[in-house]
Amino acid sequence: MLTVDWENRGTLPLYEYLCRRIRDSILDGELTAGERLPSKRSLAEHLRVSVITVENAYQQLEAEGYVYTLPRRGFFVSPVDRRLPARRPPAIPEGPPSPVWRLDLRSGQLDPACFPSALWARLTRQVLSNGDHLAPVPNQGLPALRQAIAQDLREFKGMAVSPEQIIVGAGAEYLYLLLVQLLGREAVFALEDPGYPKIRQVYAQWGAVCRPISLDRQGIPPDALFASGASVVHFSPAHHYPTGVVTPIARRQALLRWAEETGGVIIEDDYDSAFRFTGRPIPTLQSIDTSGRVIYLSTFSQTISPSMRVGFLVLPPWLLERCRRELGFYASTVPALEQQVLARFLERGWYEQHLSRIRKKYRLRRAVLLEAFAACPFAASLADRGAGLHFLLRLNTKEEDEVLRRRAEERGVRLAFLSEFAAIPRDAYRRTLVVNYAGLDPARLEEARALLEEVFGV
Amino acid sequence: MLTVDWENRGTLPLYEYLCRRIRDSILDGELTAGERLPSKRSLAEHLRVSVITVENAYQQLEAEGYVYTLPRRGFFVSPVDRRLPARRPPAIPEGPPSPVWRLDLRSGQLDPACFPSALWARLTRQVLSNGDHLAPVPNQGLPALRQAIAQDLREFKGMAVSPEQIIVGAGAEYLYLLLVQLLGREAVFALEDPGYPKIRQVYAQWGAVCRPISLDRQGIPPDALFASGASVVHFSPAHHYPTGVVTPIARRQALLRWAEETGGVIIEDDYDSAFRFTGRPIPTLQSIDTSGRVIYLSTFSQTISPSMRVGFLVLPPWLLERCRRELGFYASTVPALEQQVLARFLERGWYEQHLSRIRKKYRLRRAVLLEAFAACPFAASLADRGAGLHFLLRLNTKEEDEVLRRRAEERGVRLAFLSEFAAIPRDAYRRTLVVNYAGLDPARLEEARALLEEVFGV
Repeated sequence: MLTVDWENRGTLPLYEYLCRRIRDSILDGELTAGERLPSKRSLAEHLRVSVITVENAYQQLEAEGYVYTLPRRGFFVSPVDRRLPARRPPAIPEGPPSPVWRLDLRSGQLDPACFPSALWARLTRQVLSNGDHLAPVPNQGLPALRQAIAQDLREFKGMAVSPEQIIVGAGAEYLYLLLVQLLGREAVFALEDPGYPKIRQVYAQWGAVCRPISLDRQGIPPDALFASGASVVHFSPAHHYPTGVVTPIARRQALLRWAEETGGVIIEDDYDSAFRFTGRPIPTLQSIDTSGRVIYLSTFSQTISPSMRVGFLVLPPWLLERCRRELGFYASTVPALEQQVLARFLERGWYEQHLSRIRKKYRLRRAVLLEAFAACPFAASLADRGAGLHFLLRLNTKEEDEVLRRRAEERGVRLAFLSEFAAIPRDAYRRTLVVNYAGLDPARLEEARALLEEVFGV
Repeated sequence: MLTVDWENRGTLPLYEYLCRRIRDSILDGELTAGERLPSKRSLAEHLRVSVITVENAYQQLEAEGYVYTLPRRGFFVSPVDRRLPARRPPAIPEGPPSPVWRLDLRSGQLDPACFPSALWARLTRQVLSNGDHLAPVPNQGLPALRQAIAQDLREFKGMAVSPEQIIVGAGAEYLYLLLVQLLGREAVFALEDPGYPKIRQVYAQWGAVCRPISLDRQGIPPDALFASGASVVHFSPAHHYPTGVVTPIARRQALLRWAEETGGVIIEDDYDSAFRFTGRPIPTLQSIDTSGRVIYLSTFSQTISPSMRVGFLVLPPWLLERCRRELGFYASTVPALEQQVLARFLERGWYEQHLSRIRKKYRLRRAVLLEAFAACPFAASLADRGAGLHFLLRLNTKEEDEVLRRRAEERGVRLAFLSEFAAIPRDAYRRTLVVNYAGLDPARLEEARALLEEVFGV
């Protein structure tokens, strides 16, 4: 009969320890398939434990499938495979390392000092103490948040939007993923070239055809769009990443005519329109679209924090209807807590106050940096469109981008080059930095300049 | 020359009001394309405002594309389309209404009293005051959270998992979406029938072929799986929704052999294994897989809150490598705040304490409800597998499910029927309720019973 070494039981309950002991015997082949286990009573006597202990252990083994019962005959060992050698976690090569950069002009990190910490903590406390973070989240997002977003769009962008048109989601890429599902695999996407590479990656991942369209000085040329055969165009008229192009009103109207004439759809990616530093933001395409051809997309990554992972879509009614019918099964991807806090932040006007404060801060930072960079020996020229958290710096060098990048990385400097963002290479894109300046503290400017001069060898 | 009615300016800055006035004139056709605007100085004199005001207005109009400049000649009206009638938000039919149910046995709502409110609020406060919610989130999820999950899996499920294998995502459906991208459009998915419908919806949405496999009393029959030609099987051996089937060890081993022999992949959906009420949880398939054929999936929706939207995958090394290569461009979908709080909750042992507390609570609730329902005249029998937050109740009725559902809804009662979950209809699935009991307070039991007796007409 089974022996049990009770010494090694530790803090496990008796039944649990016994269960493990028997399981081991089965897996090691000590007990074999079809073998009958001792009756509960006799095993209990043998081991000097209670019948209840044995009964609990047998029940657990039965639930796990290691043993089975036959009525009035008792417990029998099930046919199971022998145990394999004990396992350790597999040795996995580390994920892509995240080095600590001495200077990072590539990632769009914001200045943490711009986050409205005290207010955010207070709103979070309110939501948690009311239990509102446990409220079920409808798949389009919380009504209070959609209401607050619609109100903000109306008051500050002149957009006539019903809260019902809004779909909240976990960041821009998740929203791209919804859009490509909504517009269908047969859709042909015209994309800005150069452009933000993740847009193409998400759409192509889904199997959609993507056609790069070379930008001119006003954005996407309508002729090229008509010629492309595209059914959808994804672009950012307010301020293009990375070129900084702002699409003027006549061009916007021409693109709307393309959509009306071809039945096309425009995805207006308004990722950073809050950062227009000269004058007020330009009217969105969505607000001048009268035919329901525009999908508006924006996030709070640039204005609040990229670590919050919240963005939203505004769908025209016919696409909303399709979205509810075909994609209504997807649950919301944004926690109730973030949605509740953000709704309060928006609806009480704090968001616009916050924007106005950080706009001032970044405007100043931008001015200081533009002036300082313009005076650097490695700068041939600066392209400043008075908007956004980045600008272009044309380099005074004869080296290739790849050489410069390598030299920068060796010195702990992370750079973004305009050429990386282009699907169709052009000479005009070479030797141009995309300077994402939001995270660069002017106090560290001298250090940054010295590092860059080292990289560019001047 | 332009006239401006300053009366209606309200609180707008002068330049902004002037800019709007000129923009209106252009859109209304009062000013026509190519027309030259008055010089800044002369308009300023005419309107009795400063030259700076006019200059700011002109600059803004130029930035928006309504006017253009010619060197030394001044500002000219751009060719733009005339204004269209003012817009209102479109009238959108309300989204699917969310009625207030008198009794809801369908949705998997948890009892809010089970949420660890005070501790959660404290951890959230800590994270916010450290600024940890602003930390960048790597695309697989925060290392601290993945570490804490790996430790919990090791200690409480005997799973040997490296934190590098874990991918955190915004809920089960988002993880399904990642999986179907990872496994490829050519994959053929075998799915449990009956089963959780969203699994099929997400995979089919992506264009994958789905084959329903009828369950037997131990889960998915290996013969049927071999015969299906599937390359992937998605199933929940710990406790199947909605049938409650628990897959015994020998069957699990047989399914692993299927994966090894065919090169297939097993997605082990462990959505509610924390709620095993008799004995300890059964070993996961992932923990007995030695060939790297199992993907493990779980969420915190059932154990913490569905409104938190956090789940995770454990990938075998070869799929992890593919995931990093092909899907590495997707940013994390879970906010830093939730990841930081959850990491602390797990790593300090509070999660398991919490589980043990709520398991007791739900075990008691389950026992009370099972006993009460068993005694109801409408109950023919109860299927109780000692696990999970739901059980099956076979009805003592001759009515069809559709009739019963309608009668229930008229009385404000929301029910789930087993037949709804089946792709292949079977008589055995009819007249059976899936009772999701977690949100049903035993204090409301009498009321619930009375409502159900009304519905079932007994």
